[in-house]
Amino acid sequence: MIKVGIVGGTGYTGVELLRLLARHPGVELAAITSRKEAGMPVAEMFPNLRGEVALHFVEPEKAGLERCDVVFFATPNGVAMQQARALVDAGVTVIDLAADFRIKDIAVWQQWYKMEHACPDLVAEAVYGLPEVNRDAIRAARLIANPGCYPTAVQLGFLPLIEAGVVDTGFLVADAKSGVSGAGRKAEIATLFAEAADNFKAYAVSGHRHWPEIKQGLEGFAGKPVGLTFVPHLTPLIRGIHATLYARVTGDTDFQALFEARFRDEVFVDVLPAGAHPETRSVRGSNLCRIAVHRPQGGDTVVVLSVIDNLVKGAAGQAVQNMNIRFGFAEDAGLTGIGLLP
Amino acid sequence: MIKVGIVGGTGYTGVELLRLLARHPGVELAAITSRKEAGMPVAEMFPNLRGEVALHFVEPEKAGLERCDVVFFATPNGVAMQQARALVDAGVTVIDLAADFRIKDIAVWQQWYKMEHACPDLVAEAVYGLPEVNRDAIRAARLIANPGCYPTAVQLGFLPLIEAGVVDTGFLVADAKSGVSGAGRKAEIATLFAEAADNFKAYAVSGHRHWPEIKQGLEGFAGKPVGLTFVPHLTPLIRGIHATLYARVTGDTDFQALFEARFRDEVFVDVLPAGAHPETRSVRGSNLCRIAVHRPQGGDTVVVLSVIDNLVKGAAGQAVQNMNIRFGFAEDAGLTGIGLLP
Amino acid sequence: MIKVGIVGGTGYTGVELLRLLARHPGVELAAITSRKEAGMPVAEMFPNLRGEVALHFVEPEKAGLERCDVVFFATPNGVAMQQARALVDAGVTVIDLAADFRIKDIAVWQQWYKMEHACPDLVAEAVYGLPEVNRDAIRAARLIANPGCYPTAVQLGFLPLIEAGVVDTGFLVADAKSGVSGAGRKAEIATLFAEAADNFKAYAVSGHRHWPEIKQGLEGFAGKPVGLTFVPHLTPLIRGIHATLYARVTGDTDFQALFEARFRDEVFVDVLPAGAHPETRSVRGSNLCRIAVHRPQGGDTVVVLSVIDNLVKGAAGQAVQNMNIRFGFAEDAGLTGIGLLP
Amino acid sequence: MIKVGIVGGTGYTGVELLRLLARHPGVELAAITSRKEAGMPVAEMFPNLRGEVALHFVEPEKAGLERCDVVFFATPNGVAMQQARALVDAGVTVIDLAADFRIKDIAVWQQWYKMEHACPDLVAEAVYGLPEVNRDAIRAARLIANPGCYPTAVQLGFLPLIEAGVVDTGFLVADAKSGVSGAGRKAEIATLFAEAADNFKAYAVSGHRHWPEIKQGLEGFAGKPVGLTFVPHLTPLIRGIHATLYARVTGDTDFQALFEARFRDEVFVDVLPAGAHPETRSVRGSNLCRIAVHRPQGGDTVVVLSVIDNLVKGAAGQAVQNMNIRFGFAEDAGLTGIGLLP
Repeated sequence: MIKVGIVGGTGYTGVELLRLLARHPGVELAAITSRKEAGMPVAEMFPNLRGEVALHFVEPEKAGLERCDVVFFATPNGVAMQQARALVDAGVTVIDLAADFRIKDIAVWQQWYKMEHACPDLVAEAVYGLPEVNRDAIRAARLIANPGCYPTAVQLGFLPLIEAGVVDTGFLVADAKSGVSGAGRKAEIATLFAEAADNFKAYAVSGHRHWPEIKQGLEGFAGKPVGLTFVPHLTPLIRGIHATLYARVTGDTDFQALFEARFRDEVFVDVLPAGAHPETRSVRGSNLCRIAVHRPQGGDTVVVLSVIDNLVKGAAGQAVQNMNIRFGFAEDAGLTGIGLLP
Repeated sequence: MIKVGIVGGTGYTGVELLRLLARHPGVELAAITSRKEAGMPVAEMFPNLRGEVALHFVEPEKAGLERCDVVFFATPNGVAMQQARALVDAGVTVIDLAADFRIKDIAVWQQWYKMEHACPDLVAEAVYGLPEVNRDAIRAARLIANPGCYPTAVQLGFLPLIEAGVVDTGFLVADAKSGVSGAGRKAEIATLFAEAADNFKAYAVSGHRHWPEIKQGLEGFAGKPVGLTFVPHLTPLIRGIHATLYARVTGDTDFQALFEARFRDEVFVDVLPAGAHPETRSVRGSNLCRIAVHRPQGGDTVVVLSVIDNLVKGAAGQAVQNMNIRFGFAEDAGLTGIGLLP
Repeated sequence: MIKVGIVGGTGYTGVELLRLLARHPGVELAAITSRKEAGMPVAEMFPNLRGEVALHFVEPEKAGLERCDVVFFATPNGVAMQQARALVDAGVTVIDLAADFRIKDIAVWQQWYKMEHACPDLVAEAVYGLPEVNRDAIRAARLIANPGCYPTAVQLGFLPLIEAGVVDTGFLVADAKSGVSGAGRKAEIATLFAEAADNFKAYAVSGHRHWPEIKQGLEGFAGKPVGLTFVPHLTPLIRGIHATLYARVTGDTDFQALFEARFRDEVFVDVLPAGAHPETRSVRGSNLCRIAVHRPQGGDTVVVLSVIDNLVKGAAGQAVQNMNIRFGFAEDAGLTGIGLLP
Repeated sequence: MIKVGIVGGTGYTGVELLRLLARHPGVELAAITSRKEAGMPVAEMFPNLRGEVALHFVEPEKAGLERCDVVFFATPNGVAMQQARALVDAGVTVIDLAADFRIKDIAVWQQWYKMEHACPDLVAEAVYGLPEVNRDAIRAARLIANPGCYPTAVQLGFLPLIEAGVVDTGFLVADAKSGVSGAGRKAEIATLFAEAADNFKAYAVSGHRHWPEIKQGLEGFAGKPVGLTFVPHLTPLIRGIHATLYARVTGDTDFQALFEARFRDEVFVDVLPAGAHPETRSVRGSNLCRIAVHRPQGGDTVVVLSVIDNLVKGAAGQAVQNMNIRFGFAEDAGLTGIGLLP
């Protein structure tokens, strides 16, 4: 049994971590912090956890995080970078679900996140926690930067195409749709039910913070700069991301076989049969990424459909997967829940 | 390991049974029947089960149901009564998720279900599978009539009040709201997304089939006839029932203590603290019934709020709970999933 | 043409007033105030109004409200009572969509609204703007207290029963369900999409501010105290209230005929045929209240189903209806829009 | 006053035509046909029309359609082509909301619609009813092929770019998302609430019937073949289409100015300010197409966002607009409703 701490557990990634870890056979939930809600039972805020999680929120100083084996940061951007150094030095593995350690180029990070980075050296050391790409490095990591939700769905979808060098990487289009929980559990007008229900819109077309993260990942696969247009949309789902990816075919190949081969050994990537259309609900509550690849009418465009649950494979589930890899658990420990359908 | 068969697995209670049983430590899924879809992999119809359930639908005749230990009927009303006799005689425990064996008075059943009953004698023998009331009988049952979704939520909510004799049983009101999955996976206009979304309505106010079932149950608790008004409503949820129950107080009592005492040993009934309001999402995907009891402004009306997931505690989950009791498993075997929130 | 001002136009009742008044043949929109958004074009906040409403928000002091013929307060509770005196003295008709002038008993109001009332004398003068009850008084009013959303649906549903003296007014039950826009356009966690979608709950069972308002109204119809239990629920609709009303029958009568007769001359109350179930979507965007009355199985309980759009007949539409009555327009001027279905 | 007939009024485009025509100042609703529902009052099926439309459904033979000035076909594909010849010969203007007359190449039509065309000569004569492109021809048309919903949103979005010759027409991407009412009022499992709510998926990626229609239109604008990838998605809206369009920039231009100039005189196309993101709800119930154009980070990709209400500008509203043009009414007669927001 390893001891687990969670910093900032009042958001959706926090409650999702608790839901998953409460059923994990190898962990003991040691502490969950919230300065604002200190003293409140977690299950009072999240009634689905009644009878499952006996913890109360505690103030960070009293949490004893340095005595944990692993600490998850389910905090806003800019928090983990303040506290990670001390924990890492104390021998605690840190998994940051926010963006503090995702982007290697500090200048780029500072431009998109509008703040100065507090520990650039740790950025260099941090491992980008996309297991399907970096599994070996994750095994040895002291600090894991858990990928963003859009970047997970988009990178996994483009990965086989770019690795195989069969598309024009100069003109990639990622049209992504997210459920509203992706915006977090924050009091904001734009994500009220009466604003977001029965409504669909694009946002941040001029530039979204996940664009440089995705670009960095794709350029890593390609070994060269890529041209990427990324347009996120808000859709009236609670959970779910659907990424529709477009690329121009440059090398002829059997796309279906390519995808199946690339992900054959991946427990959390499910390549659907040719002609299929993955539904977000098929992964609701599950850590799977389901992918289908199409070549409409045999033309020169390949279309990839990639779905995840933004709170699971796009956040808390992938963080637990990273923990499992890091600590030698079965990769799917605590992550065997079946998607809730309907 | 016991062998389990499912008759009629193409509806929502069927896929939910599969989701729960696929993770049950003590069962082997032997067969699932569908005449219409015979040959199709179950996971093709229900993609959340890809990699989890390898079964194909088979024709009923080829399913070998008589060699199962237990057979669930997830069929329309009127099917189980045709087949239960043979299975019971073959020593198979039958759990019917439809209404064929719920109502003891054959004439009443025939009036509400508009057909002749095929085996009245089995009705007499059948045990009504509400574990919180009939646990001992369930242990010994050959045939279990799994309760309806509304009846589960309403009966559990009224149970402590009626047993304790502290309300006027002559004027009970049950105002119940159900998600749309309660109508089943059937091609019908009234339950289309474009009809049922962003819409709320009552239905069947003049009389719903669950009314005599609830009435029979409440009269069993009371030991005398009761006056019950039951109004069901359709609300734009996928899953969930919320029953709001009203009764006139006749005997003074501490309602909170009464409810807590009655359900103290029940693993699947969670009495909330005084003043609380249960949310349907807190039991989404879970077998729990969450209940709160109120006495507004100390007046002479008691209000009970009772929520379940109509597909779990209101159908497949309660059926598995009954199976667990019948076969000596832990009562929560396969039913430990935590509600998916948000 | 009369000149119209709106105080506090950044909420849902504000945009709905604008949508209705923009098509009203007899009004000129003179000013809409918002201290916080002063200078912003209204159509920038509410893009459905692009090309329809050219106004900018202005600071209240610069709005020239005292030169309007009528001023609507679409403000939080407690604002109108500060400003109404000056406007009424200046000869401006004031219509308050908030609760400041709805409850005649100042002590009761202060208890429920947790503040001291700023002008009790105006409360005495104010006319409760339920046209189906107070039309004559509205014609002559200087100050109109526009009813709450729940109170509109509930009072119209109980009205014929209580006026006719055919039910036991000692035990009335109003089980009401509201869409989320009823909570207003405020940044709050409880009404986020990810909290309120696919979820159903009761709230404020111990006491809701609309309870004393409804009680006052029903007691006016009855001429004596009544016993009322009122339970509001939040349901995943954008717009719509469905009230399900229960009463014990004391005098035999033809309920269908009673309701048809009572509302025969009402342009905005539509009594459905016997056996019908009104849907909230049938009044989406419309000023109608649709009502059906049932007596399940000929028993001793009468059930009334009453639906409105909470932003129209439950707020802005009824306010315009009151204005029409007050200024001698056709009662449905500006209110002829047909419900948007689907 | 012109006399209007509607063939096949039991679907969503039928009820929407009625909603719009009931308020049109220049038309008299003469007949609405439905063989199956003959005799039923229209307002019984569509309760929002109670008190607004007194018509009953009649059998087609008894409808006297040949005495109408204009007949709308709100029928499944393949119906209008059987009946249009006789009506056109009788001097009746026919507006087909289905696809029978949209595609000029009969072989292509037959391939996609899987039936033989009944009157290819009328296809040649038919005018494609996209007023922003074909207004003059519509004025003189005897037979108008009302565009599909996706084709309307996609063509209007690409129109200025292709006309101006500033993008690579060899690689156009249209990623389109539709509400569920686009699938019609038909009893089908895939569009049940419990299937389509809280879910997002692409469909028909290998080929959708609107692809050849859009391609034909764009090739008309370009005067040469174009390369188009079109991927439709189902999103949990009742109404609304959001098309996100991608093209590679070939000629430098001020895109904002280009769009504003192209649509300056169009009453039903609203070009948003630079940087804006149109929401589907801003056109809910309205005949507007709202468009924004972006060039993310000044790169070589132009992104167009185009939203319509699929039942209004994407079907019934555009049909009424075509009728207005054809009969010399103001182009927005009957179409002045403001989008319902929230």
